[in-house]
Order: sequence, then structure tokens, then C-alpha cells
Amino acid sequence: MPGYPVRVATATTSVPQVCVAAKRAARELATADSETKDAALERLAGLLGERKDEILEANAADLADERAAGLTEALRDRLTLDEARIEAMADGVRAIAALPDPVGEVLEERTLASGLELKKVRVPLGVVAVIYEARPNVTVDCAALCIKSGNAIVLRGSSYAQRSNGALAAVVRDAIAAAGLPSDAVGLLSGERSELEELARAEDAVDLVIPRGGEGLKRALKDVATVPVIYAASGNCHVYVHHDADLEMARRVAYNAKVQRPGVCNAAETLLVNSSVAEELLPGLLGDLAGAGVELVGDERVRASAVGVEVGPADDDDWRTEYLGLKMAVGVVDNLDEAIEHVNRYGSGHSEAIVTGSEEPGERFTDEVDAAAVYVNASTRFTDGFEFGMGAEIGNSTQKLHARGPIGLRELTTTKYVVHGSGQVRE
Amino acid sequence: MPGYPVRVATATTSVPQVCVAAKRAARELATADSETKDAALERLAGLLGERKDEILEANAADLADERAAGLTEALRDRLTLDEARIEAMADGVRAIAALPDPVGEVLEERTLASGLELKKVRVPLGVVAVIYEARPNVTVDCAALCIKSGNAIVLRGSSYAQRSNGALAAVVRDAIAAAGLPSDAVGLLSGERSELEELARAEDAVDLVIPRGGEGLKRALKDVATVPVIYAASGNCHVYVHHDADLEMARRVAYNAKVQRPGVCNAAETLLVNSSVAEELLPGLLGDLAGAGVELVGDERVRASAVGVEVGPADDDDWRTEYLGLKMAVGVVDNLDEAIEHVNRYGSGHSEAIVTGSEEPGERFTDEVDAAAVYVNASTRFTDGFEFGMGAEIGNSTQKLHARGPIGLRELTTTKYVVHGSGQVRE
Repeated sequence: MPGYPVRVATATTSVPQVCVAAKRAARELATADSETKDAALERLAGLLGERKDEILEANAADLADERAAGLTEALRDRLTLDEARIEAMADGVRAIAALPDPVGEVLEERTLASGLELKKVRVPLGVVAVIYEARPNVTVDCAALCIKSGNAIVLRGSSYAQRSNGALAAVVRDAIAAAGLPSDAVGLLSGERSELEELARAEDAVDLVIPRGGEGLKRALKDVATVPVIYAASGNCHVYVHHDADLEMARRVAYNAKVQRPGVCNAAETLLVNSSVAEELLPGLLGDLAGAGVELVGDERVRASAVGVEVGPADDDDWRTEYLGLKMAVGVVDNLDEAIEHVNRYGSGHSEAIVTGSEEPGERFTDEVDAAAVYVNASTRFTDGFEFGMGAEIGNSTQKLHARGPIGLRELTTTKYVVHGSGQVRE
Repeated sequence: MPGYPVRVATATTSVPQVCVAAKRAARELATADSETKDAALERLAGLLGERKDEILEANAADLADERAAGLTEALRDRLTLDEARIEAMADGVRAIAALPDPVGEVLEERTLASGLELKKVRVPLGVVAVIYEARPNVTVDCAALCIKSGNAIVLRGSSYAQRSNGALAAVVRDAIAAAGLPSDAVGLLSGERSELEELARAEDAVDLVIPRGGEGLKRALKDVATVPVIYAASGNCHVYVHHDADLEMARRVAYNAKVQRPGVCNAAETLLVNSSVAEELLPGLLGDLAGAGVELVGDERVRASAVGVEVGPADDDDWRTEYLGLKMAVGVVDNLDEAIEHVNRYGSGHSEAIVTGSEEPGERFTDEVDAAAVYVNASTRFTDGFEFGMGAEIGNSTQKLHARGPIGLRELTTTKYVVHGSGQVRE
């Protein structure tokens, strides 16, 4: 295999080296104008096409490597690149270039009692570190979001994807250098295990860590991180069908929320149905779900209503579980209060939906349910940076601080108070 | 001493009990309308006056207690209440009532490609815990900010201020109950050491911890906290005098930034002077500072310019130190780049000022210095929620995530996406 994929990040490129170089580059990127950043992204989109052979060759080497031998079929698929996937990356980069630049946005502006002129201005965070697993496209997506928002990025992918990530990072670095920006604004680590902790404790250089991975990764970080971390969301999401719902709509929404893509965080895990419509709704809806291969568990009343469909007993653990697959817990509640109580008790604060035919229950549900996104008469599956019109997302947050919901360009910024005076002093 | 000050929080009021009660109350407070919250605050302001004897008696008991015997004179002064201080608290509460309610503010609103109507709405965080030291007025100030922003609050003051805090918390609880809100929205712990860790790990009930105290408190939390914490800022702030500055203005601004109140985080610790004006500016300015009792340390060029004023040698530690007192490090730099470099290397990202007679250096300084507040031709001492027109502050943040600068009402909120549809499902 040719040596180029490791040109950018070799095993000797240590965490401190990459982070310090990124921090230096971040200062330059923070004051780069929109035209320059967009030019870098346009160049990147172009280069991805021009250098696709190089990228595919690196990817083939990763797939042929013994480190990839133990991967599941699903992980191999995620790791695999082809021309269509490279083209999709380029399209994504162009879409990010077309978004408005969040940097420099004036959020507040006023003259203070002291006569000082105060502005609250959006500025980049500085250095963002992203830790991710199989998909090499994350390298490009996250780098593009960071460049657009004026941040430097340190990427840490899996070691088994290292050649693919290296080839893609090389393309990104060349693109930003061609636009006159420092290539060190995009750094790639080697994927070694020890890098996780080093990165999570690099307080002097890294402003934010975003882990994109499972519970194991979160736990590994939680114990050691001193740098702020925004943990990717887990989603124990609910659909509640109120007694005045259009039951055809409820059937469509609940089915979609569970079945359309069950492995993602905004898919529904629990269906709650008002007792006065349970008998009318459940046989058909549970039949649809079972027909799509969904394993069902439910409370006593659900099991009694489930004519001709097998529904196992649900216990407390079922209400708490994010199945991330074709399984659903179903419960009957007697009123809206019970539904809200259930959602707030068991939900993870991600995406929650009510189906209702009138305004007041929708308002109470959206007011009282404590979650990043609350829906009236729509599937929970819409919680997504692209669907929300934010262009793209670097992750999704169920935290309440800084960013709640999709993490897009604005969420990759902080603010700065810029104050102009004429010699004012405090009395 | 009468028993009432411990009515609210006794040693048997455990952290889980107080937190769980606060969480329950938070749901009600989150949907309370502005009129109700303001009525509670007006009632509180009134009750503080009506029940001042009860408060002063509790405060006298704290001051007479053996736990207060070992306090420094400064801490005793902070602990001490009198009629004027109680009146100032009431005025503060009325000022908070008069501020606009942040809750319900619509930050974004758009129709998505799917036809969904999306709103991004400001909502309360939930339960905020504040850990503080001597001053009993923090009990009232922070409770008022939390009530106004729809949050429940758990207060944890020092054990030696417990009767004072208890009397004040009792007044707050009675005031909010009189307005029809749940009194458990304001909980007070007993001040025992073990509560710190319990509170910092109460993930299920507490949404944010704000410590208001010294480095010891921060360290104690940093190691154990799993709840998000916004650490009160440390402030290693700078004033830089450019070569084109109005030197009279520079002299006033630098003097004010150091001397007006040297023990606070927005006071300046280092003065940087452009070499071309050092000889003209320094003798007078250093004389002013020395005359105010400021101990001076400086680099070689400063010491050479300091005619008739004693200036010790400054080492690397001096550039890093937040003196929080009458001491200042003084350095000469040859140009703006050196000044910015110095500030970004040694500063804590709190408040940084340049004095300059033209626009371009001010723009470069405010663009390139990485801090919560950057000033052109004004004292760093203005970084403060009240001075910034935010009404009041619960603390001051040098973090970049969530809140940077004064933490006022808006910073005590998060957001929620409220999405209305007509049966939309993902394709």
C-alpha cells in the first residue's frame, strides 16, 4: 500500500502535538472571514471528487487489514466507502458552505448606564475534539462544520479506520491550505486507546469534546474528562395517543416513530395509549407493528386489548430501556397527567410526541414534558439537524446546558462581550 | 435563642429529600406565569422588611455562636446583617421582579421542509444548586433569580451562617407560598461538609451546580461532580496601553482597574505598556499605584522607567497570579502582537482592556483576545451583571460553554424545541 494515508497522522503524532498545533491554528481560523472559510469548503468538495481513487485505495487497505477482520457486518458496512458515499460527503460539505456563518452574529447590543457600548458577539469555541467510531465520513462532516464555525478540530477515529480517515483528513488539510488557512486546524490522531484520556484531559488546548459512540465510550470519558464534554444523546422516546386523537394519524405516527429506522436515538421505544381509545386503536396498530417484526411487551390492559397479537409482559426495566431495535413497550394510561408523569419519569429527555385532536392537551404536553424536542401530531423521528433546518449536525444533545437537541453550527460557538468606552472607570 | 431559624432546614433535612422536593416543585414553577412569579418576588421584598427583627435576631445568634468565633474580621463583616443590608436585599428583589421574564421567549421560529412548525423556546433549567460561603444575602439574591427564571433552587451556605440563611429562606418560602407557588421550590441544606459531594452527584434531581467560593471549593467539586457545574471565574485581567493611547485616560483606567476594588475577579492584575510610551506614562502611573498602597513588580524595562517608585522583579509566576489584592505586575511590550500574545498566554479569559486612540488596534485586540469580556478604553471593572444591564447575576463564568461572563436570568435557562405537525412521518 502506498504511504500517503499516514502522511497526516502517524503514531508519532502525539495528542499534545496535535492539540497545540490545533490551538495555534484556531486563533487564525477564529478571525477568518466567511468567504475564505467557504472557499476552503468548496475546494474540499472538489478535492473529494478529484482524489477519490486515493481515498478508496486507503479504504480498501483498511478493509483488508487484520484489524478489520473481527468487525461485524454492520460495522464493515459503515467503514466501507464507495463513489456514491464520497459524492454524498462532497454534497454535505457544499451544503455546509451554503449555510450562514454563525461567527460575528451580534446577539445583543445596548448602551449601558455608564455610557459604554456593549455588544454580545458570537465567536468560535476554539478547538473541538470529536471521538468517533467506524464511519470515515464523520472525518469530513465534522471538519466541515468546525471550519465553517471558525473552530479547529482534533479528530480521533477508530484505529481500524485509520487509513481511510487519514486519506480524508489529508484532503481536508490540503483544501484549507489552498484557501490560505492553516492546515493544522484539522488534526487527526492515530486511534490508539490511550488517546481518549489524554484528549479528555487536555484542558489547556481543547475547549470541547464530542464523543460519537456508544455507552462504553461515554463511561470511559465520564470518569476522566476535565475538558467539557457534550455526550451524544440516548433516546428513550415516547408516543402518547390522547383520547381525542385522529386514530388513523396516531397509527401512522406511532408506526413511523418505531419502525422507520429503529436503531437511532429519535426512534420511539414506548407507546402510551389513552384508555378510552385503547380498544379501538391497539389491535390494528399492534398488528402493524408485529407485522413489521416488532417484538411487543405491554401492561395488563394492553395485553387484554391485543387481539391476535403476541404481547409479552412489560416490567419497570422495559419502560426504562432504549431498545434501539425492533422492540416496543406499550402502556395504557387513564389521562394526560398519567402520560406526562410516565414520560418525565422514564424518558431520557430526547424527543416526545403526543397525538391529539385539540389544542389544550398539546399545549400541556409541550409545556410540561421535559425534553429537548416535544411534538404534537408528528413522529419523533424528525429530531435531526438537517430536518430542523440547521443544515447538519455534529451530534445531538439531551443535556440542558449549552446545547439541547441537534448540535449544529451555532452550538459550536460561544459568545464574547465586546465593550467600547471613552475612558469609563467604576465609581 | 428562639427555634424558628431552623424551621426550614434542620440537620435531618437530607440532600435527597430537599432535592427531590425541589424537583417536584420545579415542574410547577416552570409553567408559572410572569405575574405569579413577580407577585412572589414583590411579597418577598415586603416580607423582608416586615420580618427584619426575626432575621436580625437569627443573624445575631450566628455571630454569637462559637462556630463564628474563628472567623476573620472580613468574614464576620460579610456575615453581619443590619437594617440597611436587609433593605438592599429587598431592593435587589424588586429590581429582579422588574426584569423581563426570560421564560417563553421564542428564539427561533420556522416552517420546516416537512411542513412542521418549529419553535425554539426558552425554558427553565429545572433545579439549580448554589453553594456559597459567608454572605447571607446570597440566599435571597439567588432565590430571587431562580424564582424569576422559573427554576427551583437548593441553597447550601456555610454552617456558621445557618440561622441567618434559615431565617431568610423561611421568608422566601412564605413569600412564594403566599403567591400560590410551592414553597419547596426553595430548599436550604444544613451546611454540613458531606452535602457538597452529595449535591454534586445528585444527577437525577439537580440540573446545575453553581459554586460561589474560593479555589478550595472548586477543587472539592471538580473531583466528584457529575452534575454540570459552572465554576465562578478567576480573573487574571490585564490593561494594555497602546502607543497611541490618551495617556491621561490610560492612567485613570489602569488605576481604576487595579485599585477601585482589588479583591474582586474583574480587577486588573497586570499592566502592559507599549515601549514607546513607557517612559512618559510609567513614572506618573506607578506613582499613583504606589501611592494607593499597590506593591509593584515588573520586568527590566519597567524597573528602569520607574523613577522614584520601588518595583520588584516580576517572574513568570507573577504574570500568572490573580493577586486579588493591592499588588500588580507591570510589563513593557514592543507592539500589539506581543500584548495580545501575553494576554492570551497568561490571562484567565475574564476581562481584558486596551487603551488606544485609534480604531484598528482596538478591533484587533477585541477580535484576537480570547476572553469573556474585552474592553476598548474602559476599566475591566465593568464586567458585572448589573453594570451589563442584566439586572443581577448569580455568578460570573469564564467557561465557554453555556454561559460566558455574568450569569443572569437568561443563563439560568435552557431551550426546548416545540414542534407542531399534522401527522407528519419520516420517509
